[in-house]
Amino acid sequence: MKYVARVEVRLKPGHTDPEGETTREALVELKYNVKSVRVSKVYEIVFEADSVNDAKNIVEEMCKRLLANPVKDDYRYYVEEAHKP
Amino acid sequence: MKYVARVEVRLKPGHTDPEGETTREALVELKYNVKSVRVSKVYEIVFEADSVNDAKNIVEEMCKRLLANPVKDDYRYYVEEAHKP
Repeated sequence: MKYVARVEVRLKPGHTDPEGETTREALVELKYNVKSVRVSKVYEIVFEADSVNDAKNIVEEMCKRLLANPVKDDYRYYVEEAHKP
Repeated sequence: MKYVARVEVRLKPGHTDPEGETTREALVELKYNVKSVRVSKVYEIVFEADSVNDAKNIVEEMCKRLLANPVKDDYRYYVEEAHKP
């Protein structure tokens, strides 16, 4: 069965976010009154699995092995059956 | 008043997503049965505005001027009042 996962990976609180800081500076330069910017990444993954439980286990494993850095990233995700287009 | 916007920027359908493709290849290398990966970016922005309507206009403008590339990106966002920590 085909599933789609939406995985959001972001820096843990307390970790410096250089991309967010650069974006903040660029917005301030444009005269916006911006206090802070944090950037996170969303992966939308279409993949094969046998069941929704299987699919969730696979995504958890993908996060641990590739998508997130356990030292500095938090991640969250949801998984659902892919709809036929 | 302080507001927080969550802005998601992603490539328009049909545009090649090299980062997604690289991630897909890395997952396939790890033996996952992955069909496609698309990557998008989420900006969480804390900023000052006079009202929620004013805040929405500001975010729309930020997207057009800096966060999204109108040629290749779609964006969506929501804005809410920031909660005091």
